[in-house]
Amino acid sequence: MKFGSYRNKGKTGFGAIRGDYIVDLTDIAPDLKSFLAAGRPAMESAHAAVAASNSVISIDEVELLPPIPNPGTIWCVGLNTHSHFEEVKAALRLEEKPSKPILFLRSSATLVPSGQDLEKPALENAFDYEGEIALIIGKRARNVSISKAMDCVAGFAPFNDGSAREYQMSSNQVTAGKNAYRSGGFGPYLVTSDEVDASALSLTTRLNGDLVQEMFIEDLIFGFAELVSYISEFTWLEPGDVIVTGSPAGIGFTTKNLLKAGDKVEVEVQGVGTLVNGVRDQEH
Amino acid sequence: MKFGSYRNKGKTGFGAIRGDYIVDLTDIAPDLKSFLAAGRPAMESAHAAVAASNSVISIDEVELLPPIPNPGTIWCVGLNTHSHFEEVKAALRLEEKPSKPILFLRSSATLVPSGQDLEKPALENAFDYEGEIALIIGKRARNVSISKAMDCVAGFAPFNDGSAREYQMSSNQVTAGKNAYRSGGFGPYLVTSDEVDASALSLTTRLNGDLVQEMFIEDLIFGFAELVSYISEFTWLEPGDVIVTGSPAGIGFTTKNLLKAGDKVEVEVQGVGTLVNGVRDQEH
Repeated sequence: MKFGSYRNKGKTGFGAIRGDYIVDLTDIAPDLKSFLAAGRPAMESAHAAVAASNSVISIDEVELLPPIPNPGTIWCVGLNTHSHFEEVKAALRLEEKPSKPILFLRSSATLVPSGQDLEKPALENAFDYEGEIALIIGKRARNVSISKAMDCVAGFAPFNDGSAREYQMSSNQVTAGKNAYRSGGFGPYLVTSDEVDASALSLTTRLNGDLVQEMFIEDLIFGFAELVSYISEFTWLEPGDVIVTGSPAGIGFTTKNLLKAGDKVEVEVQGVGTLVNGVRDQEH
Repeated sequence: MKFGSYRNKGKTGFGAIRGDYIVDLTDIAPDLKSFLAAGRPAMESAHAAVAASNSVISIDEVELLPPIPNPGTIWCVGLNTHSHFEEVKAALRLEEKPSKPILFLRSSATLVPSGQDLEKPALENAFDYEGEIALIIGKRARNVSISKAMDCVAGFAPFNDGSAREYQMSSNQVTAGKNAYRSGGFGPYLVTSDEVDASALSLTTRLNGDLVQEMFIEDLIFGFAELVSYISEFTWLEPGDVIVTGSPAGIGFTTKNLLKAGDKVEVEVQGVGTLVNGVRDQEH
């Protein structure tokens, strides 16, 4: 199944995506996060609703939202591909690949749905893209083993971990640069794990139509299951939490492809979908 | 005014704290965050409700929650006191004080109200306290100048930025170690800015009754207004967002006072209140 969240006539909802229409599922749960938390019975109700195809809305009629507009926590992983590590290790004076995942958080205030613009902060001169694969947690998890970790993953979505590089490098913590308002593209949809071969995912990022990043899953230093397991050592993962798993080589900061107003960035996760975001200057 | 949030008979609410009872204000707004967002008219209604003293509940009857149980974003500031910088600079091989605030985020899953236990993660051998002063944002703010920044602050509360030092030092980003489940004490109450001289605040931390940290406001490297102004450069601050402003010297990691089950930590902000948390081992 493919799930999306949207706003229609002032009300937010979510539903199953079927081609160019949405089967509204807000009778089952108020939002996709609580739908995931409700587990198998809710999923069975969703299958029945899709089969019956009641409450159908054309995608053109709604404003798409990030698949989970209100995640409890958005975990991001820094320097988590071999290719990106090689790309930046000299500039960052790094000697060894990370021995544990490098984590930082994003505020949900940074999220932008597919089809809308990322915003370059007025004081930032090095605004950049990072195409990544996001996992969405479907089940509460603590102390989960690597072998059982993927049971907690509801599905996948493309993510653009948009980065304000000057803020990112203004201190030894990257958080400021990873939390610019409207800097994180997320969507268009969540595709459930049963429809995805997580061991064979690949990703491409295009800037104004040109290929700038390409990643195969082997490029990840810490794989999906390792990330879930690691975070669950020290806290609970909750339904709707997001793990943004890391970007490959080809960031604009090294390739001199920094973002400016009018640019278009596409992050495609093969078999999952394509996130499309324009870029505009800060509006307020 | 002093505001607190609580759970009573399965329902969450908030109210004005008057001695040992609460004047319930959930008729004005569903929670303290939306009350702050509603601005001056809501505050005037609160004053009227307190004067009338309808809907009074004894504090003993309720389960206290963090003053804002559901902050949009919890900003924390690392190495933000001269004393703490001096304390750790040799161990961390730091040469110069930060030129910009060092930011990281906490998930709201980490929050623990006053009167309940912090949890030491099972795999962590260096669980630590950090007494700090938290600001709570009262007004949406972007690009706010230092001179106007304090107008956006609704009030203050004590905070214990509990730190899992091994996770914190497992990579170059502190986020994992600052996001252990139930590691962040927050409360007991929000005291509004009009009742606090923010230029003369001081803080003490006691471990099992012994003074372990003492801070005067001059110890902060980046002051309250500078922090608000800086964050508002690159994103919107929203009502209910929290800024945890930095801890002074005296952390357990350097003084060999690491936390263990059965310990009691008190963070007192003079004129604002005392946050009291026990410590227990991880429960799940």
